[in-house]
Amino acid sequence: MTDTQLLTRLFYPRSVAIVGASSSPTKIGAVPVSLLAQHGYGGKLYPINPAAETVQGMPAFESLTAVKAPVDLAIVSVPAARVLPVLHEALELGTKNFVLFSSGFAEAGEAGRLQQQQLTELALGHGANILGPNCLGFMNIRERVFATFCTGPAGGLVQPGNVAIVSQSGAFAGYAYTLARERGLGLSHWITTGNQCSIDVADCIAWLAGDPQTRVIMVYMEGCTDGEKLKDALAKAYAAGKPVVACKVGRTSSGAQAAASHTAAMAGDDAVYSALFKQYGVARAYTVEEFFNLGYAFSVADALPSNRDIGLLTMSGGVGALMADDAQIAGLTMSPLPKAARQSILRRVPFAGVNNPVDITGQATSEMDLLSYTARLMLDEGRYGSLVVFVGAVAASPALWPHVREFVCDIRSAYPDTPLVLSCTIAPANKQDLESLGCLVFSDPSTAIHMVRALCSRRDGRPPRGLPGRTGTGTVAFPERLGEAASFALLEAAGIPTVCATVCANPREAVAAARRSGYPVVMKIASADIAHKSDVGGVRLAIADDASVESAFSEIMATVAANAPTAALDGVLVAPMVKGGVECILGAHIDPVFGPVVMFGLGGVFVEVLKDVSFRLAPIDEDEARSMVAEIRGAPLLAGARGAEPSDIQALCRAIAALSEFAAANREGLSSIDVNPLAVLPEGSGCIALDAVIVPRT
Amino acid sequence: MTDTQLLTRLFYPRSVAIVGASSSPTKIGAVPVSLLAQHGYGGKLYPINPAAETVQGMPAFESLTAVKAPVDLAIVSVPAARVLPVLHEALELGTKNFVLFSSGFAEAGEAGRLQQQQLTELALGHGANILGPNCLGFMNIRERVFATFCTGPAGGLVQPGNVAIVSQSGAFAGYAYTLARERGLGLSHWITTGNQCSIDVADCIAWLAGDPQTRVIMVYMEGCTDGEKLKDALAKAYAAGKPVVACKVGRTSSGAQAAASHTAAMAGDDAVYSALFKQYGVARAYTVEEFFNLGYAFSVADALPSNRDIGLLTMSGGVGALMADDAQIAGLTMSPLPKAARQSILRRVPFAGVNNPVDITGQATSEMDLLSYTARLMLDEGRYGSLVVFVGAVAASPALWPHVREFVCDIRSAYPDTPLVLSCTIAPANKQDLESLGCLVFSDPSTAIHMVRALCSRRDGRPPRGLPGRTGTGTVAFPERLGEAASFALLEAAGIPTVCATVCANPREAVAAARRSGYPVVMKIASADIAHKSDVGGVRLAIADDASVESAFSEIMATVAANAPTAALDGVLVAPMVKGGVECILGAHIDPVFGPVVMFGLGGVFVEVLKDVSFRLAPIDEDEARSMVAEIRGAPLLAGARGAEPSDIQALCRAIAALSEFAAANREGLSSIDVNPLAVLPEGSGCIALDAVIVPRT
Repeated sequence: MTDTQLLTRLFYPRSVAIVGASSSPTKIGAVPVSLLAQHGYGGKLYPINPAAETVQGMPAFESLTAVKAPVDLAIVSVPAARVLPVLHEALELGTKNFVLFSSGFAEAGEAGRLQQQQLTELALGHGANILGPNCLGFMNIRERVFATFCTGPAGGLVQPGNVAIVSQSGAFAGYAYTLARERGLGLSHWITTGNQCSIDVADCIAWLAGDPQTRVIMVYMEGCTDGEKLKDALAKAYAAGKPVVACKVGRTSSGAQAAASHTAAMAGDDAVYSALFKQYGVARAYTVEEFFNLGYAFSVADALPSNRDIGLLTMSGGVGALMADDAQIAGLTMSPLPKAARQSILRRVPFAGVNNPVDITGQATSEMDLLSYTARLMLDEGRYGSLVVFVGAVAASPALWPHVREFVCDIRSAYPDTPLVLSCTIAPANKQDLESLGCLVFSDPSTAIHMVRALCSRRDGRPPRGLPGRTGTGTVAFPERLGEAASFALLEAAGIPTVCATVCANPREAVAAARRSGYPVVMKIASADIAHKSDVGGVRLAIADDASVESAFSEIMATVAANAPTAALDGVLVAPMVKGGVECILGAHIDPVFGPVVMFGLGGVFVEVLKDVSFRLAPIDEDEARSMVAEIRGAPLLAGARGAEPSDIQALCRAIAALSEFAAANREGLSSIDVNPLAVLPEGSGCIALDAVIVPRT
Repeated sequence: MTDTQLLTRLFYPRSVAIVGASSSPTKIGAVPVSLLAQHGYGGKLYPINPAAETVQGMPAFESLTAVKAPVDLAIVSVPAARVLPVLHEALELGTKNFVLFSSGFAEAGEAGRLQQQQLTELALGHGANILGPNCLGFMNIRERVFATFCTGPAGGLVQPGNVAIVSQSGAFAGYAYTLARERGLGLSHWITTGNQCSIDVADCIAWLAGDPQTRVIMVYMEGCTDGEKLKDALAKAYAAGKPVVACKVGRTSSGAQAAASHTAAMAGDDAVYSALFKQYGVARAYTVEEFFNLGYAFSVADALPSNRDIGLLTMSGGVGALMADDAQIAGLTMSPLPKAARQSILRRVPFAGVNNPVDITGQATSEMDLLSYTARLMLDEGRYGSLVVFVGAVAASPALWPHVREFVCDIRSAYPDTPLVLSCTIAPANKQDLESLGCLVFSDPSTAIHMVRALCSRRDGRPPRGLPGRTGTGTVAFPERLGEAASFALLEAAGIPTVCATVCANPREAVAAARRSGYPVVMKIASADIAHKSDVGGVRLAIADDASVESAFSEIMATVAANAPTAALDGVLVAPMVKGGVECILGAHIDPVFGPVVMFGLGGVFVEVLKDVSFRLAPIDEDEARSMVAEIRGAPLLAGARGAEPSDIQALCRAIAALSEFAAANREGLSSIDVNPLAVLPEGSGCIALDAVIVPRT
């Protein structure tokens, strides 16, 4: 049985044993028994309790051994100390799938961590799956597998649907269950991973990518320790065409601290998670509300917008203006309706607003066919990629509701490839009715706009960028000591243009080098021991003639020797002084979880004061580099703001991509790279690294 | 009767006549008749319809004259052409309050605009109040006055409460009515102002400030034409201690365009509205969802946080981390709990997270008194200004709900001055129960945090800054032509330090001036006809000696004469070259609606590329100027980022306040002022205007 098949057996078990089954409703071992028995689970059920004849009216077994039948899944609800013996017994009997409710492992200090390590080794050694420990288990909603002690189902069952929820946190998942029920969001699977001793969030995502009942994967996570596995899982979901929505806490220092104290998971650098999500087409949610709105939008919408041009149809001019504000801020366009279509609408509603938003006013309540009439004109003539319609309280009126429904039927069947979003108040049953037609419904008009943007982003998304084939090239052996000149040489070889710099051992060599490169020149101390050359008086700019070069050489050597007496000095580096261009900063580092990461920003205050930088997991291609560049707030400076010439963005993107490949190829030997500044010259003139520090891994 | 008393008569009428009353349910004139009759309006009701004996079972009157009894309010629901005769008749009979449903006025082109002008004049001439035309009327919820044809009440009445909704848009207000009903938000008044021929949003705010039934004022607006009236109204609401929540559309070009096409209102500059709202303590909502959350928060909370330090108590570590993220981003602090309190909690829950967020884990479901125990420790020992508690699905459990209620009762009575916010799923009736105890309830934990921030901002708010007493000083008569030297002189006199500049008529004068000011100097063409001196070759920097000054003088005069042959040249301005400092930009202009406005930003890319600027209505004092400075993203640069000395922010704030007073005092004569750059020198060294353009009003 493959790993995937075994996971399928876990989540679709034909037989379930509950070790620690109980009749006492206050015991957590009672919950799965009653849920499985009461809600029609179709497989075999074996309550295990050595101290009871029966459990909740069912005959109880003394032990797993006493069952004498195959057990696909063992739910273990016993104190931590008794978990290992139970697992050994089960494994010997051939059971390979476990849910461990028990707490007292890694979350409970060093002794627990060691105990959990034993669980991990057991799972690895036997090719078994353990969900947990310290988890709330899982539910297969459609098959009514309640391998959980979550109290949510006791308050009412969530309806079956196509959305899977995977959560590291049991309490979050429990809350999500009740919210899904209250919002009428249908679920396929609900899985909590707890301490993740064997199965983690990534395993679940990868498995759900192949699960036919699941169309959308909602993920709550606090941290990740195996970046490659998570990348693979997200790539699988992408390839399967299944949107992933992620809520990842710990995006601030406070949140990361709270998350770290909550689980043993490493919070990691949030900017790297953001890059991961961007590159793998994951829709990131920052609030529980947004998490559910995104899951809902991907679950209900059966089409993606063909373009970012949005059509807004409203019965309230005010809400139309509000939606126009939101759409513009969301980066959507609102092309005006063509003139002929405008005139057609005005013939029916002389006071209508007909630009886009199209405001057919309260008149529509007396002539409800205006909705279809206008929407059809908009989609035929305006060719909008999506249509958002604000009908306010109209859909809640029993008299008008049939007309609203008719309108939605008409537009969905005539334009099946165009997402239709309604903003209104509406009875829950009628809302579900519209959703079954593929129409999204939100009471908040701004949410309607934001969800259209999310659908657009998914359409614009590209396959995850791993480029694994290209990372084998360019691996270099780093010298022990790596000065600026050597760093330049490595970067130049990797395809990043660098300034032509010569390390000179004496004033004479320096003058010769300066004459070759042309005046004015820059002179800097050459030493692998000195990272911050200015701080020790090791830098001189704009040196204009031979005599100045000679004196600068001696002065630099003397000053640095005095300021950094222990540093080995290789001489002075002479380079032409590059003028003009926009100063940028490129960087790369090896993230402990996700590996090589590349960074881009504008230099100076932009990076230091405004933290205006963008990140990507490396390697990336030039297209992805272009999106990094476009993403920073200061991007207009490169495009030629303030009357300046546009910069050579193409050369810049080439350099970013090259650096990312170099970092990826050298993830083993590298710690970090800083290219600061990289001067990006006017269009056609390229870019050039003026300073660089490469730090090999020690 | 004062204007206020007359408005009170409008919104609390003892008798209502409906002109155009109808029995036909499809007619808008039928709606107020049936609502008033069915829902127990306590005053007299007079349906007017010359063509009917009875209206909806009530005897109908042929005309207002036929009523022969005092009419406090006439609702007019007749075609536009018949409105004026009806008004004349009513005014003769002594009726002074009107609601005009009729459309076909300013929203319908020039003829309608002229007709509406007649209404305005009629209202002014007779001291009458007209709500509308083209409005949905109003409702006094508690007194059951339904002077509206809004269809909302037909679907169910909103509950009475302390929140008033005022809306320019009828459709928005109608939607808001149903949302308020669905969310259980109790209303006092619901008012639509439509075309605002007489009563506008500001009149309603000012009146509601004195209305005893109203504690919170929710305002939807698209534009404003009388800024002073709106300022006065907001100041009244502030003085009355009533929070105002505003949703103002048109914050982008798309939204403003849509709003302008919707009503005749002027959208104005959104940045100026933002300044207005900030200065008058108005909570601005950007979405309908936020609008209602803010109205709800101010309505339910009976205390404001005493500090920005928030206590977070959670039963889910994950949601705790999420809330910590939100709180940090919202600018709230989360001080850790003192050690003794931490130990007390750990004695009861060894696995608890005890820093802040305090995570008492699912353990609380077995020991529900842990909630009170922990919350009391947190409030006693942590002294947090507010407490947010995440209990997830626990409050929805019938078994646990009584414990949740007990917890809320306990904390609210023990800490009545500390806002308590619960995040949970809960039955609507139980939610209202908690709200009656002054406890806020949100299902989304992030919303809970954002609302605490809104409460903090209200606490931190200061009385509206009008400083009317100080604006009479400093009024100057602007000369017809105003060059840089004259601008400097005016600013200097107004208290803004300027560089010592001399206009020189010939090279000899220039040399003398340069020697007096000390080398190096800057030389610029002196001409009131040239705004952009660099563009015509009129600027030279860093001139170092007498000879260079002489030649620069001639060159500047010759170059400018060639490039700007029609400009009158006054000579060349000589000024010392100020080095160092942070380059800022100060500006002021006279907004057509709100009058004098002052602007601050950092110079160069900050203002030109990042649009990183802040605005305030002028005049402001130095404290308000300090908040302007703190508000921009680049503020760390002034505080001494990148190892630089901290700048003289005090001097900067003095200059901003002085400029704001100058602009306010000269609102009649002024069009705009640009001080660019203003060099802000290191702490203690002041700031100095290096260039300035004052444009008088023409």
